[in-house]
Amino acid sequence: MARNILAIDVGGTKLAVGMMSPDGAMHGAIIEPTHKERGVDAVLDHLSDMARRVVGATRHIGDFDAVGISCGGPLDAASGILRSPLHLPDWVDVSITDLFADEFSVPAFLENDATAAALGEFHFGAGRGSSTLVYLTVSTGIGGGSVVDGRLMRGSAGNGGEHGHITVRPGGRACSCGRYGCLEAYCSGTSIGLRGREAAQIAAASRRSTGLTASSTAVDVTRLAQVDDEVAREIWDETTELLAQACTDLANVFEPEVLVLGGGVTRSGKMLLDPVRDFVLAHAMRPVAATISVRLAELGDLVGLVGAGAIAQDGLARLARN
Amino acid sequence: MARNILAIDVGGTKLAVGMMSPDGAMHGAIIEPTHKERGVDAVLDHLSDMARRVVGATRHIGDFDAVGISCGGPLDAASGILRSPLHLPDWVDVSITDLFADEFSVPAFLENDATAAALGEFHFGAGRGSSTLVYLTVSTGIGGGSVVDGRLMRGSAGNGGEHGHITVRPGGRACSCGRYGCLEAYCSGTSIGLRGREAAQIAAASRRSTGLTASSTAVDVTRLAQVDDEVAREIWDETTELLAQACTDLANVFEPEVLVLGGGVTRSGKMLLDPVRDFVLAHAMRPVAATISVRLAELGDLVGLVGAGAIAQDGLARLARN
Repeated sequence: MARNILAIDVGGTKLAVGMMSPDGAMHGAIIEPTHKERGVDAVLDHLSDMARRVVGATRHIGDFDAVGISCGGPLDAASGILRSPLHLPDWVDVSITDLFADEFSVPAFLENDATAAALGEFHFGAGRGSSTLVYLTVSTGIGGGSVVDGRLMRGSAGNGGEHGHITVRPGGRACSCGRYGCLEAYCSGTSIGLRGREAAQIAAASRRSTGLTASSTAVDVTRLAQVDDEVAREIWDETTELLAQACTDLANVFEPEVLVLGGGVTRSGKMLLDPVRDFVLAHAMRPVAATISVRLAELGDLVGLVGAGAIAQDGLARLARN
Repeated sequence: MARNILAIDVGGTKLAVGMMSPDGAMHGAIIEPTHKERGVDAVLDHLSDMARRVVGATRHIGDFDAVGISCGGPLDAASGILRSPLHLPDWVDVSITDLFADEFSVPAFLENDATAAALGEFHFGAGRGSSTLVYLTVSTGIGGGSVVDGRLMRGSAGNGGEHGHITVRPGGRACSCGRYGCLEAYCSGTSIGLRGREAAQIAAASRRSTGLTASSTAVDVTRLAQVDDEVAREIWDETTELLAQACTDLANVFEPEVLVLGGGVTRSGKMLLDPVRDFVLAHAMRPVAATISVRLAELGDLVGLVGAGAIAQDGLARLARN
């Protein structure tokens, strides 16, 4: 009989903890600033304290069977160790599952946040009822995950799903990964903002009118594109086209029933989804286009927690099989 | 106790039939011209005759439990129907598994040839002992398949693995699929030959010396590149770079233990493998590059038959589980 999961999401800005019931509903979630400047130990103490508060406040819905933890990589999911998360400098080889397994005497499971989010959307979000799903999170960076025939795809050592590093413009913009022309180098929130600021500079030099300035962000680009600022619109159209190109590649390779777009940039809603969906349906191989559904994620800001919960459910199921 | 499989490979040029023992070894294989101009019924009769001959000639190694059939698509693997194979015009909705299941009173299984080849290489070729493999066949066209955590990935309706239609040059050369810039539009044998002939024309106009002519094929490009014909070398270098770019994308998405390159174009051996492997190891995300092995296929011309055999083994295992 499935019971609850204590779900933990370790972000660089915010920590989140909640109690997930078997149906994916989140209970008593609390979200607090990470204050990573206080150092590893202080943040972990804070996280434990949040966990205890959530456990205390949700006793009425029953016990929990496991802890699920979602965090940015690099991490080692199999051994439950945060290797050196990019968003948490100075966190090196932190055995985070041991910490929570010891504290609560239940198994604890760790997974890369984008991978966990893919499983969360699969079971409880936009992928409910499907068997094969590809997920992209378009946020500060771009990550992803895939579920194939109902099973989460982790890659041979847990590092698969680097959908942000599909090449979309060979020899193009420099990417944080050291290569050129990756999807992330164009379509992450960071890159959209940067391209907006560059475009502001070029527009000024050529006396083209635009609301973009030297301090514009991705949100500004989105907002201005929506009110038909021509320069912002060009950036936005390039963004959706390149994202759609990578989605088409993924669609051709996986033939997923559902391709889900999540992450902060997708708060732009239809102005992102519609052109991406239209492009994929027009350009994917015909049998692929005939079956795929391109959708926005449904779990919103809870995706990290629900993903962590889904990972722990999956981990318990694997333990039960072995 | 696993027994033998009657393996059938239905090509546009050649038909192949053999008896595969549980260890993937092929017994009594016969390969004969398809003569597709004789029409569907004559070819199917011929295929049945070949099958009976193989069964007769291999009685000494024991009975067989199933028939495995490998063929180019589009096809419907689940129902065992050849929809309209591109290499067999006029073959429309041929229930090929029914035909052989009825004839031999054992279950019959059908799969797309590239998908079957992926499973064949996984169990009995370059992927032996691995858990996750990505396979590309670089031949007249480019196809592919993937095995994830030991399970063949078919896509939601059996049409996944279209690795040949990953975009490598956005807005580039026209592809047979109707899009522009696909991997297949550059790196298939067909496209390498075409690019060779185009280059011959351009070289002639600019009085550049080359052995390429208006009738050169992919094999000529390969041969001339090997003896340092500069024009052919440029085509070959572009070919390996674009193939490597798509392989890097696939590596980042799947994090496979093994990435296998098969198909006629890979007969060029090290001059294809070495630059592709070097590029993938240099450009894939670091954890991916640290674990991946890029290899040539090992099953050679038997890959179609061994793939068909592996598909039937897999089909029997699935029947046993259900």
